[in-house]
Amino acid sequence: MSTHKRRRRRPRRPAIAPGSSPGTLAIDPEAPKPVIQLIAYGPEEVVEVDAPSVGELSGYLDDWPVVWINVDGLGDEQKLRSLAEVFGLHRLALEDVVSLGQRAKVEPYGDRLFVVARMPVEGAPDETEQLSLFLGDGFVLTFQERRGDCFDPVRERIRQGKPVLRRSGPDYLAYALIDAVIDAYFPVLEQVGNGLELLDNEVLESPQKDTVSKIHAVKHRLQSLRRSIGPHREAINSLLRDSAEFVQPETAIYLRDCYDHLLRLSERVDVYREQCADLMSTHLTVVSHRMNEVMKVLTIIATIFIPLGFIAGLYGMNFNPEISRWNMPELNWVLGYPFALLVMALLAGGMVIYFRNKGWFD
Amino acid sequence: MSTHKRRRRRPRRPAIAPGSSPGTLAIDPEAPKPVIQLIAYGPEEVVEVDAPSVGELSGYLDDWPVVWINVDGLGDEQKLRSLAEVFGLHRLALEDVVSLGQRAKVEPYGDRLFVVARMPVEGAPDETEQLSLFLGDGFVLTFQERRGDCFDPVRERIRQGKPVLRRSGPDYLAYALIDAVIDAYFPVLEQVGNGLELLDNEVLESPQKDTVSKIHAVKHRLQSLRRSIGPHREAINSLLRDSAEFVQPETAIYLRDCYDHLLRLSERVDVYREQCADLMSTHLTVVSHRMNEVMKVLTIIATIFIPLGFIAGLYGMNFNPEISRWNMPELNWVLGYPFALLVMALLAGGMVIYFRNKGWFD
Amino acid sequence: MSTHKRRRRRPRRPAIAPGSSPGTLAIDPEAPKPVIQLIAYGPEEVVEVDAPSVGELSGYLDDWPVVWINVDGLGDEQKLRSLAEVFGLHRLALEDVVSLGQRAKVEPYGDRLFVVARMPVEGAPDETEQLSLFLGDGFVLTFQERRGDCFDPVRERIRQGKPVLRRSGPDYLAYALIDAVIDAYFPVLEQVGNGLELLDNEVLESPQKDTVSKIHAVKHRLQSLRRSIGPHREAINSLLRDSAEFVQPETAIYLRDCYDHLLRLSERVDVYREQCADLMSTHLTVVSHRMNEVMKVLTIIATIFIPLGFIAGLYGMNFNPEISRWNMPELNWVLGYPFALLVMALLAGGMVIYFRNKGWFD
Amino acid sequence: MSTHKRRRRRPRRPAIAPGSSPGTLAIDPEAPKPVIQLIAYGPEEVVEVDAPSVGELSGYLDDWPVVWINVDGLGDEQKLRSLAEVFGLHRLALEDVVSLGQRAKVEPYGDRLFVVARMPVEGAPDETEQLSLFLGDGFVLTFQERRGDCFDPVRERIRQGKPVLRRSGPDYLAYALIDAVIDAYFPVLEQVGNGLELLDNEVLESPQKDTVSKIHAVKHRLQSLRRSIGPHREAINSLLRDSAEFVQPETAIYLRDCYDHLLRLSERVDVYREQCADLMSTHLTVVSHRMNEVMKVLTIIATIFIPLGFIAGLYGMNFNPEISRWNMPELNWVLGYPFALLVMALLAGGMVIYFRNKGWFD
Amino acid sequence: MSTHKRRRRRPRRPAIAPGSSPGTLAIDPEAPKPVIQLIAYGPEEVVEVDAPSVGELSGYLDDWPVVWINVDGLGDEQKLRSLAEVFGLHRLALEDVVSLGQRAKVEPYGDRLFVVARMPVEGAPDETEQLSLFLGDGFVLTFQERRGDCFDPVRERIRQGKPVLRRSGPDYLAYALIDAVIDAYFPVLEQVGNGLELLDNEVLESPQKDTVSKIHAVKHRLQSLRRSIGPHREAINSLLRDSAEFVQPETAIYLRDCYDHLLRLSERVDVYREQCADLMSTHLTVVSHRMNEVMKVLTIIATIFIPLGFIAGLYGMNFNPEISRWNMPELNWVLGYPFALLVMALLAGGMVIYFRNKGWFD
Repeated sequence: MSTHKRRRRRPRRPAIAPGSSPGTLAIDPEAPKPVIQLIAYGPEEVVEVDAPSVGELSGYLDDWPVVWINVDGLGDEQKLRSLAEVFGLHRLALEDVVSLGQRAKVEPYGDRLFVVARMPVEGAPDETEQLSLFLGDGFVLTFQERRGDCFDPVRERIRQGKPVLRRSGPDYLAYALIDAVIDAYFPVLEQVGNGLELLDNEVLESPQKDTVSKIHAVKHRLQSLRRSIGPHREAINSLLRDSAEFVQPETAIYLRDCYDHLLRLSERVDVYREQCADLMSTHLTVVSHRMNEVMKVLTIIATIFIPLGFIAGLYGMNFNPEISRWNMPELNWVLGYPFALLVMALLAGGMVIYFRNKGWFD
Repeated sequence: MSTHKRRRRRPRRPAIAPGSSPGTLAIDPEAPKPVIQLIAYGPEEVVEVDAPSVGELSGYLDDWPVVWINVDGLGDEQKLRSLAEVFGLHRLALEDVVSLGQRAKVEPYGDRLFVVARMPVEGAPDETEQLSLFLGDGFVLTFQERRGDCFDPVRERIRQGKPVLRRSGPDYLAYALIDAVIDAYFPVLEQVGNGLELLDNEVLESPQKDTVSKIHAVKHRLQSLRRSIGPHREAINSLLRDSAEFVQPETAIYLRDCYDHLLRLSERVDVYREQCADLMSTHLTVVSHRMNEVMKVLTIIATIFIPLGFIAGLYGMNFNPEISRWNMPELNWVLGYPFALLVMALLAGGMVIYFRNKGWFD
Repeated sequence: MSTHKRRRRRPRRPAIAPGSSPGTLAIDPEAPKPVIQLIAYGPEEVVEVDAPSVGELSGYLDDWPVVWINVDGLGDEQKLRSLAEVFGLHRLALEDVVSLGQRAKVEPYGDRLFVVARMPVEGAPDETEQLSLFLGDGFVLTFQERRGDCFDPVRERIRQGKPVLRRSGPDYLAYALIDAVIDAYFPVLEQVGNGLELLDNEVLESPQKDTVSKIHAVKHRLQSLRRSIGPHREAINSLLRDSAEFVQPETAIYLRDCYDHLLRLSERVDVYREQCADLMSTHLTVVSHRMNEVMKVLTIIATIFIPLGFIAGLYGMNFNPEISRWNMPELNWVLGYPFALLVMALLAGGMVIYFRNKGWFD
Repeated sequence: MSTHKRRRRRPRRPAIAPGSSPGTLAIDPEAPKPVIQLIAYGPEEVVEVDAPSVGELSGYLDDWPVVWINVDGLGDEQKLRSLAEVFGLHRLALEDVVSLGQRAKVEPYGDRLFVVARMPVEGAPDETEQLSLFLGDGFVLTFQERRGDCFDPVRERIRQGKPVLRRSGPDYLAYALIDAVIDAYFPVLEQVGNGLELLDNEVLESPQKDTVSKIHAVKHRLQSLRRSIGPHREAINSLLRDSAEFVQPETAIYLRDCYDHLLRLSERVDVYREQCADLMSTHLTVVSHRMNEVMKVLTIIATIFIPLGFIAGLYGMNFNPEISRWNMPELNWVLGYPFALLVMALLAGGMVIYFRNKGWFD
Repeated sequence: MSTHKRRRRRPRRPAIAPGSSPGTLAIDPEAPKPVIQLIAYGPEEVVEVDAPSVGELSGYLDDWPVVWINVDGLGDEQKLRSLAEVFGLHRLALEDVVSLGQRAKVEPYGDRLFVVARMPVEGAPDETEQLSLFLGDGFVLTFQERRGDCFDPVRERIRQGKPVLRRSGPDYLAYALIDAVIDAYFPVLEQVGNGLELLDNEVLESPQKDTVSKIHAVKHRLQSLRRSIGPHREAINSLLRDSAEFVQPETAIYLRDCYDHLLRLSERVDVYREQCADLMSTHLTVVSHRMNEVMKVLTIIATIFIPLGFIAGLYGMNFNPEISRWNMPELNWVLGYPFALLVMALLAGGMVIYFRNKGWFD
């Protein structure tokens, strides 16, 4: 559990001192250096450039209807600042690009729309990576923390020349990227669902010592998923409601679909959270039931033998039968011992029957 | 419990890869092939056609005031796409038609209104089937996952020539279908209510080992009912508020009634959920009360016999009475043994009376 | 508990099959036959007619400023339909009149205002009776499930010629009836409050076996009261906000007072619900405290006697003191037995003192 | 606890029968007779009249800019009705004046503003007294349940001629009175806070038998404070928002300050409620921890002595050592008894060490 | 815990009597005397004056574009009143300046904007200090409870001549100060997070006696952080929405960023609160699990030895074997004693195996 938390909090570390000038960039010295990838396309053609210099970019902006510049890595303040200059990014937006741990949001800065989304990270189910996206006139500029993303199908669609995508403006590209991010949560949730099913069996059939912490871990993951997914709803909603200047009406229909996917994600998270809570309560009931059963059986055994022990003790007393016939005459009976055994057997049997009738053995 | 979940999640499986082009149809290969049924009617006449080809449909659209095309089964991408073309369905809407597991919703796509509702499935109380309904100029087009629905009374009303239905437009037909879906939840809830009553008796009179999981199962079913029913409220509300171009004022009055039914459904679900929570808490109280009773009785028995055993042990000591008259003179008393028994009896009786006075036997 | 539930759900039984034509009347065959009572009045005069025929009614509508037609019993479809025709009632409204179990609501149907309210039933504190009220031009038409209501003071006020009532229109009469219904909840709540006070004493002074179910019963009743009272707020609110054409401004002031009463009812229900929850938690604390006390005392007794028993057992061992002077020399001491008793007494006394100092007897 | 409740509910007793004519006054026969006190003032002068007759009042209304008529006691229907006539009070407002137990509210009746506030009662921390205030053109009319209020500082400010107060209209006077009522809650809360601090120590250091009910009592008081304070917020808010005709803009600034005080009161109540809940949970943890400790120690003692007792019992067996050398040869060992004692001591010591290592003595 | 509370409540003590004239200043006699510091700047120049007299201030207001007057300490009513006069502060605002314990808020008083913020106090993590800020034409006037704040970086930025700050108006300075206050919460939260991580290890590996109170302390701190941070959101929101006359559009963009920081703070507080709740529940589970384990082991030991003790007692009975061959013939068997020991060993071994198979040793 602790490793999980330590990992989550680390990216927020290189924090800016309170009171610093806004726009101060807190570059993490260990962050990978930025690598630029450019895809420019129109209805007819497409061109891809790997690692262009910042200076080359403006040329493409003029020549192509839609230019997508993707930056992987945030470890070079100089390069980021020169990108900001070329694309006219506000310094507060740039500060947010490098301040990881932002919530998903949409913020207009003049004629640039700044969108933050959080992508699930493959292989690290409790982490999300920050995607910063700028939508401007004729371009989409995306920043990612490191290489590796869920956008390859989108790139493929551009290359294959899917008509809707190639003929639409940068707002549709922005939609396609956001949609890819959101849909990437579905497999993550699927995985959580499978984990819950396994846990369900474990709880009912063979609860382990660490079952509680497993359930807690799933609960944690669901909480962090909820916190990642939730703000996207507000963000998409504000795109639909307040950003008409950036989003064409045709694209808005697609964004509405995107919003619908978010609703379904949220609903599924809620379903899993309820299941998680039920699992926990079932687990506690099962464990306490077992404990009660153990204590009951143990107590029944003790309760049966204590009276028997008393009778045995009775005939271990040393009263002198020779002094009077009132003193333990049973000791000298011919069948004294069998009689005592019989009394004990009857007592034990009676108690067992009584307890069984009361239903205490169930 | 696990079977229930596995079943519910399966229909969502043939998911679309994140980043895919919107409008990609995820056809489940095991889904039944689509079968079309057409009913066209006007105030005076009605005609029914079983399994017409897609090409024939447009003819009816021109000739009849209202045409209802119902499609059972979603297993043929080609046929669905050609239907979409004939009726002018948006590709996002068509994607939703085959992506099962949609929440109830209303989405206008130009001059087509797209409605999703979830029908309870007879005999599978935890499942719902997705009904996709398109309302356009002069037609209602419905898609169902498979044959079998709750619309036979509506078909009968069309055939019998009920005047309101026959004289109204397709919006009234759409209302009639949605109303049938919503009313189909009432018997499902009735069943849950009966189950709760049985559980109520079981909890109070003869709690079983699996009572907890039965209560959990009912709770689960109520949660999934709530999740099925809830979004219909938003959907109907948006029909009433935002869809004036699709819904005539006279039909709106009927939809308002429909909304009222949804309110009553929601209320009843809430009542049952509260009863469920109460049942659970009553059950836990009853179980813990029984356990406490058992432990108390057992402990009382042990507590009574341990002091008696001590006294018996006392007179089992081997101090030598011959060495001094201080050493266990009772052993040589004439009535030593009866005296010891008397002491024990008094002690036991005293404890019983004390415990009873304290009310520990209640 | 179960009887209570069975009773509540029964009136909903004669349900309409899903998909039926709207406006289908589900007449309960056991329902009492409708009996009409008419009161017509103006500023100067008043006339009462018992059991007029439906045909006679329209005459009064023309002649009198305000006509109140009250119908007790809903067991005759023919009569209800002819009433609906005379007064121009919408078929959906009429369906709601006979579908018992409606929530309180206000629905305009053209120039008829349809109001549903739920009246507490005297002597059956968990039940409410449905009052359906139609307000139209010059008349108020009320339907009740059976004879017996809380309107006698209103009738008396009409007869006595209270000026405000006699001079106002039918909207004021409707207000007076609704106000009577709402005020009828106050004594019901008063009764619940008295019951809570008794339970409070019972919990603190002499908890019984069925205390839990008594608390649950009160909680149930409060929940159903909340569910009865709550929708009236929305209803009155919508009367105040949206029904200006039916309600005169002077009457609106009275309805606002009515709304205020509802707020107070709701608040009182909340107070009682909190008291109920506190009672339950107090009860559980008290019960668990008692149980703990019992177990503690029993365990202390056992704990004191087990070591004593061990010492007694020690001197019951049969080591042969004749073989060596190391073997149980105490047995042959002159004061061996008193010494052993003294040791036991000291041990027991020490334990008692230790336990008392620790505060375990408190 | 019960006395507290009985006290709170009593003032609501002389309830009006459901269905009564609105405006019926439910005069409590035990209520004190009304005593009128008049203060009239302008920028320059002030006059106070004790117990004027109702007839004299209108004279002052004409002559002075602001007239404050305060009525202590509500036990005389005639006098109240004549006051209502002089000041043009609506009969519903007058009904509310005598129906104690109103929530704080603001209701305009034509050109009279009717305000209800609830004053904390000194020395009875669970009670509040109803203040009914009418604000009209040139006058403020207040009704209190009985003599004694928190307005003496306001009277003093009028007498001393505080300029803002003396130069402002009756709306400022109304503000000053409402502000005095609201500020009177601060010392009440302070008291609750001190009580919580004492309880905090009690819980941690010396939990008593009645600690739970003390915490419950504080919780109750906080709930009733919340219910008294909460509606004032709505009331002041509606004064600020909807009552521009009664409240001058300058006075509105003061009312906003008043609202801010209410926010702080609410926040403090919430802080205390959280502390209360924490106290309860801490208390339960402490109590259950103690109980567990007791049971653990007792069980450890028993567990150590039961095996010892078994060994002692072993050598108390009567097998005949003379018949064979296999039968209890230890009994005839020279060091048999010391050996047995040693075994027991080792066993006991081993158990104690084992238990200590396990940390069971902590 | 109690020290913490006592400290928090103290600053509110010198309360004003209910009913006092609004604007009465409750000067805490122990409060430090006010010390004024002035910084005036324009795009080109900056001047700092330590401890100017109140009279000198107006001169700077006329000569410089932006004047920041900071007052540390509130212990001199005369000085505060003369400041209020110079800067035209409303008496209600001044009352709030000295009434510590205000919530964060924004209140316009004519052409002065009054802002209250709460600064975290270094070294006293549960306390916050009240910052009162007035924004007027050309000046920012701040009041702090005592020397020491988080504004040194802002002062440094003014001195260093950061262009945005130096060229903007007083609204940007106000933003910079508020931003510094809000960012000062991040390290406080970081600290809480670290504490939670330590507690997490403690709970899982070595729960202590005071673990519960440590968790409660963290929860308390989070609650008070939430209460400090929350109202800032409303305040900044109202600045953005309602204060266009005080805030330039360019500054509004910065305030929006500030609001975003508040959202992240709130979210982090929520994360920690959930972790706190989980820690508590994990702790209770761990503790109860340990207790159960202890009791189980102890009970198992007792349960094994009680039947053995019974058998030993059996052969300690004194039935006379000489009288009949039925009386305890085992005592005279050659291998009687080994046989009895064997029986006991088998019994004990059987029970251990049975218990182990049942999984009771896990």
